[in-house]
Amino acid sequence: MSLHYKNLDQTKAGKKVLKAVKSAKLRQLLTAERVRNYQVQGAAGWQFYYGARAVDDKILELLQNLSDEQQLVRKYRELVNGEVMNTGENRLVLHHLTRGVVDKPVRWSGKDLGAFYNDQWQKIKDFSDKVHKGEIKSSKGKKFTTVVQIGIGGSDLGPRAMFLALENWVKKEKGSLLMDARFVSNVDPDDASAVLSAVPLETTLFILVSKSGTTQETLANENFVRETLAKVGLEPNAHMVTVTSETSPLAKSPRYLASFFIDDFIGGRYSSTSAVGTAILALALGKDVVEGFLKGAHAADLSALEPQITQNPALLDALIGVWERNGLGYPTTAVLPYSQALSRFPAHLQQLDMESNGKRVNRFGESLNYSTGPIVFGEPGTNGQHSFYQLLHQGTDPVPLQFIGFHDSQRGDDVVSEGSTSQAKLNANLAAQIVAFAKGQKHEDSNKSFPGNRPSSLLVNKRLTPEALGALLAHFENKVMFQGFVWNINSFDQEGVQLGKILTKTVLAKGEMDPALQAYAEILGV
Amino acid sequence: MSLHYKNLDQTKAGKKVLKAVKSAKLRQLLTAERVRNYQVQGAAGWQFYYGARAVDDKILELLQNLSDEQQLVRKYRELVNGEVMNTGENRLVLHHLTRGVVDKPVRWSGKDLGAFYNDQWQKIKDFSDKVHKGEIKSSKGKKFTTVVQIGIGGSDLGPRAMFLALENWVKKEKGSLLMDARFVSNVDPDDASAVLSAVPLETTLFILVSKSGTTQETLANENFVRETLAKVGLEPNAHMVTVTSETSPLAKSPRYLASFFIDDFIGGRYSSTSAVGTAILALALGKDVVEGFLKGAHAADLSALEPQITQNPALLDALIGVWERNGLGYPTTAVLPYSQALSRFPAHLQQLDMESNGKRVNRFGESLNYSTGPIVFGEPGTNGQHSFYQLLHQGTDPVPLQFIGFHDSQRGDDVVSEGSTSQAKLNANLAAQIVAFAKGQKHEDSNKSFPGNRPSSLLVNKRLTPEALGALLAHFENKVMFQGFVWNINSFDQEGVQLGKILTKTVLAKGEMDPALQAYAEILGV
Repeated sequence: MSLHYKNLDQTKAGKKVLKAVKSAKLRQLLTAERVRNYQVQGAAGWQFYYGARAVDDKILELLQNLSDEQQLVRKYRELVNGEVMNTGENRLVLHHLTRGVVDKPVRWSGKDLGAFYNDQWQKIKDFSDKVHKGEIKSSKGKKFTTVVQIGIGGSDLGPRAMFLALENWVKKEKGSLLMDARFVSNVDPDDASAVLSAVPLETTLFILVSKSGTTQETLANENFVRETLAKVGLEPNAHMVTVTSETSPLAKSPRYLASFFIDDFIGGRYSSTSAVGTAILALALGKDVVEGFLKGAHAADLSALEPQITQNPALLDALIGVWERNGLGYPTTAVLPYSQALSRFPAHLQQLDMESNGKRVNRFGESLNYSTGPIVFGEPGTNGQHSFYQLLHQGTDPVPLQFIGFHDSQRGDDVVSEGSTSQAKLNANLAAQIVAFAKGQKHEDSNKSFPGNRPSSLLVNKRLTPEALGALLAHFENKVMFQGFVWNINSFDQEGVQLGKILTKTVLAKGEMDPALQAYAEILGV
Repeated sequence: MSLHYKNLDQTKAGKKVLKAVKSAKLRQLLTAERVRNYQVQGAAGWQFYYGARAVDDKILELLQNLSDEQQLVRKYRELVNGEVMNTGENRLVLHHLTRGVVDKPVRWSGKDLGAFYNDQWQKIKDFSDKVHKGEIKSSKGKKFTTVVQIGIGGSDLGPRAMFLALENWVKKEKGSLLMDARFVSNVDPDDASAVLSAVPLETTLFILVSKSGTTQETLANENFVRETLAKVGLEPNAHMVTVTSETSPLAKSPRYLASFFIDDFIGGRYSSTSAVGTAILALALGKDVVEGFLKGAHAADLSALEPQITQNPALLDALIGVWERNGLGYPTTAVLPYSQALSRFPAHLQQLDMESNGKRVNRFGESLNYSTGPIVFGEPGTNGQHSFYQLLHQGTDPVPLQFIGFHDSQRGDDVVSEGSTSQAKLNANLAAQIVAFAKGQKHEDSNKSFPGNRPSSLLVNKRLTPEALGALLAHFENKVMFQGFVWNINSFDQEGVQLGKILTKTVLAKGEMDPALQAYAEILGV
């Protein structure tokens, strides 16, 4: 059977999911046996536990049928093999290929694109070796000590979250970072100004990241950096490399020390494993760390090919998410890593998920009659417990939760107080929260009652290593992709960002504009 | 008429709000005249624009009636005058008093509590003077250069967000910070370990913040700090002060260089203007900065006494929020500051709002039949534009938005590219987004269409100064309080955090526990 693209509510299985009766309450369902049985092994040491999610064997069967009828794994295979999946922009979707060939090599206009991405990675490794050895020096002949990424959105959040996730692992394993790393993203001049005042300009290398080479914020920040460098007598061209597409105005310009390329088949929010992420990560953390990261992501991509949903964590996570969104009607979901290293991982997932699946028309441009991508938010635990968990436990609207935990800390530096380590406290809190959300607690004072039945899943690994991080990132990328297939939307464009860009240009050009826009521009002094 | 406490759906005006017909679509409503007319002046230079929110004069009239019938301003006045408003815990709610007397002095058991809070502030000023002058020295006789706050939830998020909000203002106005500031919150040992490895221990002063003196995470992190200091031959007692209540086990202990007090009438999430926030802010930024911050908050508190909703920005913001939540049925709201300095302000508001109003029973413990506090999330613009704004523009669920903007940057350091400064670009983007969300745009390709009718408000000020920040904080605190009154809930307790704490203790004590909890504890290796 060839592939078809149907709306969720046009499929037999989808109709059943939309009308399925809620299973018995989690409060009753959640036994130790279920916790142990409802688990699936992921790549790179991950284990996915879904016993505390609001599903039972009957719902899982419906979801398996939905996966089969919507041909989710087959569509994934088509995607990695180079079918045009970003239909609106008529583009391939090849971020998987940046970490390895999933099924078979992909050629486009006679070019082996896997080889192209790999070539760029070889160039980055070679470049970072030379920087680390001091063979490539600053304009004052000094060894570079610091790297600053200038980019926004996909060129910022993912690489930043990945850097923070591995910074302390590298400090522990290697004794120190290879280079300090910072990021400038916002067009607010206070962002660039503050970062530039805090880094040693003479020994700082800047990576300018813009696929199109036309991103307003990034070009403004490039100018900011160049003016600042020039003011202190440094040669800007000797302090800046670029990550862009070969067709962009930035490509192969003499204004950059080096250029590393991506192409239109790597969406910004999926670009952490391309040169967008690997350049800064190799410079700051080391090429071996990046290779571990890519290896973990690739392993997760391979595990996502399994058609049996209970054997494929990303697929299962996606389908349960659809059940929560369309069957149970929950509009939001929270990502709660019990790991300080993942402090910005929820912000990256917020982008990944909401920008991919925040769509109201299907891939053919037809309006949809069901909800698509949820609102995603989150902060690390235990911090969140002292903040928004109140609403999660006792608010009027249930929020499905995605917990992430690790047996061991990254730095291995710990203290015993009141008979337990901090790491044990962290994980005791995590276990306690899952059960508190699921089972709740009756109390004679209803203000102290917990309704329970608040679903969650748990992704666990031994330690947050480069491999584990790569696999975690790919898990969520693939989850979002599978959900897009279920909803029959194009998860790989972002037309919703265009209107604001156009109106901004009108304001700046002081052109003829809508009177309300004119009024707001005046109010804001622009 | 004496005060009454009724559920929203028990009031005449509330019933009308719940059943009100949506006004004409924003797409049509939003004219320049409306933008200019629908504004109200706030304290400390703030202007609140609500022309792009989904209200018209008829809805505003309903909301005024609701405010009157639910006696919102009268309840606020009772609160600031020392009535027991935190009914579950039988406590007063006095955070307003930490920045000045709103209506009249508050006495409790013969004690003037305003004088008490003020005394603590005087003690903090005196202490920070001595630290700055080098009269109070480290255990090695050195001048302290760095201050680290150890606290979690309300003892962390607010002070951290406020520090980040003013850090660059101080650097610009004073040339540098008085002391560098860092924060340790998470029980994850990687948090404390990373911060301690990055500060100069010999010259670092720690502020241990826990109202009860029993917060598990904070005490574990205190031990972490003490062990680390002792290992390098420093005397921990000479490097640590505490902010706690007079009745806590930490109070007046010889283990601390100094103690600054709060009491049970200051909720954690409302404590940024108490010693919880002012100690670290005075040490890092200076007492004059804190006084400006308190002054701004106090001015906003005074402006919240106005009973006419169109003259009281916090009250109006609260009521429109209720309309969005209960009338229009929107379950989430986003806070979007166009200012990098406010990078963690949304996280603080997420705590403030979701912990205060994430409740499902009223102040008498009776279940409610309507939705209460929404999910709150946000990131600074323009960053968010390249991330989750896709869903906000084109997703299936509208999300009401709260924009915040400033005419001028904090650092005043800017660059012109393509004919405009970065600050002008920032604000052009902000104006453009408001209009894009409200008016949308039709396009023959429905994937490029924007439905519009997505409501937002705008808070604008000239520059983010200490006064402006204080007033901004108080605006949201008072908004959340008014909403709690409308919903007839107790916004000042947090019983939802208790069950997790109890279960955590059971896990750590390896006591008898629910088998599912035992299973999760094993999975997490604890």
